[in-house]
Amino acid sequence: MEHQEIMTTYLATFIRQLSAMGVRHAVVSPGSRSTPIAMLLAEHPNFQIYIDIDERSAAFFALGMAKEMRKPVVLLCTSGTAAANYFPAVAEANISRVPLIVLTADRPHELRNVGAPQAIDQIRLYGPHAKWFEEMPLPEAGGEVLQFVRQTATRAVVTAVQQPAGPVHLNFPLREPLVPVLDPPPFACKEENQAIGSAIGKLELGGGEIQKIAAAIRPKERGLIICGTIDEPGFPEAVLTLSEKTGYPILADPLSQLRSGKHGKERIIENYDSLLKDPKWAGYLAPDVVIRFGAMPVSKSLTLLLKKLETVDHFVVDGGNGWRDPVKRGTTAVYCDEIAFCNKLASAVSMDSHSSWFTMWHTLNERARSIVEIAMETEKGLDEGKTVTELAKLLPDGSTLFVGNSMPIRDVDTFFQVNSKNIRILANRGANGIDGVVSSAAGVSASVGKAYLLIGDLSFFHDLNGLLMAKMHKLNLCVILINNNGGGIFSFLPQANEPKNFERLFGTPTGLEFEYAVKMYGGRYVKPRDWKEFRGALSGYENGLQVIEVQTDRAKNVENHRRMWMQVSREMETYFQGENQ
Amino acid sequence: MEHQEIMTTYLATFIRQLSAMGVRHAVVSPGSRSTPIAMLLAEHPNFQIYIDIDERSAAFFALGMAKEMRKPVVLLCTSGTAAANYFPAVAEANISRVPLIVLTADRPHELRNVGAPQAIDQIRLYGPHAKWFEEMPLPEAGGEVLQFVRQTATRAVVTAVQQPAGPVHLNFPLREPLVPVLDPPPFACKEENQAIGSAIGKLELGGGEIQKIAAAIRPKERGLIICGTIDEPGFPEAVLTLSEKTGYPILADPLSQLRSGKHGKERIIENYDSLLKDPKWAGYLAPDVVIRFGAMPVSKSLTLLLKKLETVDHFVVDGGNGWRDPVKRGTTAVYCDEIAFCNKLASAVSMDSHSSWFTMWHTLNERARSIVEIAMETEKGLDEGKTVTELAKLLPDGSTLFVGNSMPIRDVDTFFQVNSKNIRILANRGANGIDGVVSSAAGVSASVGKAYLLIGDLSFFHDLNGLLMAKMHKLNLCVILINNNGGGIFSFLPQANEPKNFERLFGTPTGLEFEYAVKMYGGRYVKPRDWKEFRGALSGYENGLQVIEVQTDRAKNVENHRRMWMQVSREMETYFQGENQ
Repeated sequence: MEHQEIMTTYLATFIRQLSAMGVRHAVVSPGSRSTPIAMLLAEHPNFQIYIDIDERSAAFFALGMAKEMRKPVVLLCTSGTAAANYFPAVAEANISRVPLIVLTADRPHELRNVGAPQAIDQIRLYGPHAKWFEEMPLPEAGGEVLQFVRQTATRAVVTAVQQPAGPVHLNFPLREPLVPVLDPPPFACKEENQAIGSAIGKLELGGGEIQKIAAAIRPKERGLIICGTIDEPGFPEAVLTLSEKTGYPILADPLSQLRSGKHGKERIIENYDSLLKDPKWAGYLAPDVVIRFGAMPVSKSLTLLLKKLETVDHFVVDGGNGWRDPVKRGTTAVYCDEIAFCNKLASAVSMDSHSSWFTMWHTLNERARSIVEIAMETEKGLDEGKTVTELAKLLPDGSTLFVGNSMPIRDVDTFFQVNSKNIRILANRGANGIDGVVSSAAGVSASVGKAYLLIGDLSFFHDLNGLLMAKMHKLNLCVILINNNGGGIFSFLPQANEPKNFERLFGTPTGLEFEYAVKMYGGRYVKPRDWKEFRGALSGYENGLQVIEVQTDRAKNVENHRRMWMQVSREMETYFQGENQ
Repeated sequence: MEHQEIMTTYLATFIRQLSAMGVRHAVVSPGSRSTPIAMLLAEHPNFQIYIDIDERSAAFFALGMAKEMRKPVVLLCTSGTAAANYFPAVAEANISRVPLIVLTADRPHELRNVGAPQAIDQIRLYGPHAKWFEEMPLPEAGGEVLQFVRQTATRAVVTAVQQPAGPVHLNFPLREPLVPVLDPPPFACKEENQAIGSAIGKLELGGGEIQKIAAAIRPKERGLIICGTIDEPGFPEAVLTLSEKTGYPILADPLSQLRSGKHGKERIIENYDSLLKDPKWAGYLAPDVVIRFGAMPVSKSLTLLLKKLETVDHFVVDGGNGWRDPVKRGTTAVYCDEIAFCNKLASAVSMDSHSSWFTMWHTLNERARSIVEIAMETEKGLDEGKTVTELAKLLPDGSTLFVGNSMPIRDVDTFFQVNSKNIRILANRGANGIDGVVSSAAGVSASVGKAYLLIGDLSFFHDLNGLLMAKMHKLNLCVILINNNGGGIFSFLPQANEPKNFERLFGTPTGLEFEYAVKMYGGRYVKPRDWKEFRGALSGYENGLQVIEVQTDRAKNVENHRRMWMQVSREMETYFQGENQ
């Protein structure tokens, strides 16, 4: 067989097996060395290909798709720094447990480390940030090599999706000529070899372990169920059952998917960040037991409360094999599928579902909610918090909202109240970078059909290139851009008290008029002057790329937030004075 | 001492020592964990700070500055994916031997790998792509720790600049509170401890080694001196002396800095790529000995010629400790400073400086040059090759031209003829990526005062964010943007013969109207309709950001190139037929 035939068979075997494992999407960046893989992916009837010129954007796009679908997406690029551009998204996918299958084309061994062009050392390129790395053999025709290729494709998918899910990296050395043989069509006839399948179990605790946990929590009224980022169908129902049976309220991060949805909301506490802001009341709100699911919630005041709980039973439940306890107050590391854990523990206990502890949290949460609502109703000017309450009201049922890091996710945490719509909220909360957010949202839009993105101006700038995907692939993406001309979060940090160099080092106003960028990418641009125009733009959105730029003021934003938190604190004073009388 | 005082003393000691080692420039991206280093760098009177919001762009900006100055530049970013964004530029700097000092702030050990926000594993983050990695200790006040900090700052600079120069990476774990103590001013009084200095030697061959090489080349008339990327003051004079004394013509890549400058050009061959395109004449042009300096030249036809030289003495001279022989025809790996090597070998030989071999190369080169010149003069439409010949004519004496990868550098290789102006040509020819080129050129402009950039549309798009640096730091950058709406280089590759999926996978037309982007970044945009307008825009350029977009056609470009190479081949036929009669 000729080189090109051997290469074609080898790569087609790999791609066919990816398809047999159910992989359907590939994000491909143009390049020379990756030519045969790109051409064969495009040739395969099952693969949908997205072309992205900027590899950094491509990787975040794939991350968004994979996060939305909870299924692995293939990434493909050429050799050299192209592959290094994937690094931020690979690191993020690794921590936020998103399955990616990264394929990098490489120069063959004789062209490595000898000064050949477009060659960097790609062996273990992402270090410990990829769950698994495999240096593929040069294309060969032998049956054992082909079976290895089949195995490796299977194992790549299995490793990427197994909890904790994450990115895997396969490096393919390829020799010229790089054009595959497309006649006869490589995927026309069924392969004679059987595809390799998989069956993946979940971690489950035995009855004895569950009974021990049940015995530990049973005497404790003051318990909290805390849900950080967790996006598993069936989890809301399971954790609500656990809450019913224990009487513990659920502190629900916006990324827990518990604040929206068709399930009941009476046991969901969403205003804990505001309630815990003033440390004066922490004593009243401190639990005797904590059951925590998912990644650490966004809320800093919750983190501070948890840190204080030095002698409290604190179960960190993880269906993957992670270690997610930055507050270092976990007393039992529980490795069990979250849904199975909730159901089994709920069966093992039966406590007062409306204890006074529960009632306190419920009442305070409702009062905080109405303070937020009244504050937002009376707010007439364009404001970051109100943008979120308006979004919650106006987003259509069934929407997907992607949220940027830094201020937007915190604003969503503070202002996004429970509601009965299905609104799925996603964000890159692995490493919490402001990078790659536009591309991730574009990826979400590509897989789900339409997405909304709430993002700040620095993060929007950082990943402006992501908008090209909206243009090239005709995606439906509505961006709500909070433009406070710089890094708003730093105004909440101690360096804000050091005016010298503050704007230069932290405020970093860019003064960019994003209207130009939106036009370049063929989008509609709206800059509402008031809430009426904002509502019109948001409600009127149907499809394509639209950017609604909400101009706000960093200083006023800090003031508004702090005023509201003060109101909540006063309300709590009233409540607890009543209690103490 | 309090934590903040200890941290301030520790970091100020480090920064003071960087300054003592002559480092003057830092590119800083805003972030929280890096707060104390950023604030102290801004506080130090010797440091010039450039703020860049996008870390990928920041790293390429620093790379451009460091390349231009041949001096190390500091990079600083916060923890998390921010640091991963540096990876492409770090990989490029490593191969292209550019000194960078990468400082990443990190969470302290107790917040690593425990699910804390903005924390990724930063230990050896860049793997073998950083020349040196050091995990810094947590800030401490002890004299030994401070002396270690001084040593490490010194060693970072020394390691970065020592040949082969490259990036070093120091990771700083820092605890809150992160604001340093600025009162009393940390750099107001002279430090009592003496700074640590350095003295760095160069590799030099002994007389015996030089004599052996002289003896090997002395009997050989048909020798070639080949200069790839090499940017060392004094090298042009040294290599010209060697050429004089050996009679060997110099094949000079555009990045050898030999095609421009005040030195004589009669021994410089710049049209070898065209001369070697038609393999029919390779036999006449094949040397008996090769002396090669710098990285492999851009020219593919030269690479192919070298590959054929199986039994020819081939000296690969490297002042660093690299291995730059992708053609694998090197017969002696010579580790010696290039200037010292030229001078010593020139003293050891004295051969016919105008042999018939030299005359042949000289004559053919002049003929090729006039074919290029005539072809470009008769070309009336906007054309990629002619853009380069026009640039060579119009760039003012003393200009610096940054050249993008893929087609632009190849066009410069083919069309940029020798001239007597001082025009320094720079490019990212380590891994030859199309990424980071705008930012690199902006960095060059920042250090030299003004720069020109020749770039293709995909590469321009890839790093559009780099233009923000031009806006924020009021840089003088004139971009000559060749827009053929997609990846022009693929039209020269075999896949161009497979029309199915070609445009989608390789052509990748974006259809972007870059005028919008230029306006957003506050630049002047010109789209000349003809050469008169092009000349007007280029000659009229004075300062600020200006983008001259030259719209060309990919198909026509391939045609024009091939026609010209055919003419050169015909000219050679005439020449060699004359010879053979």
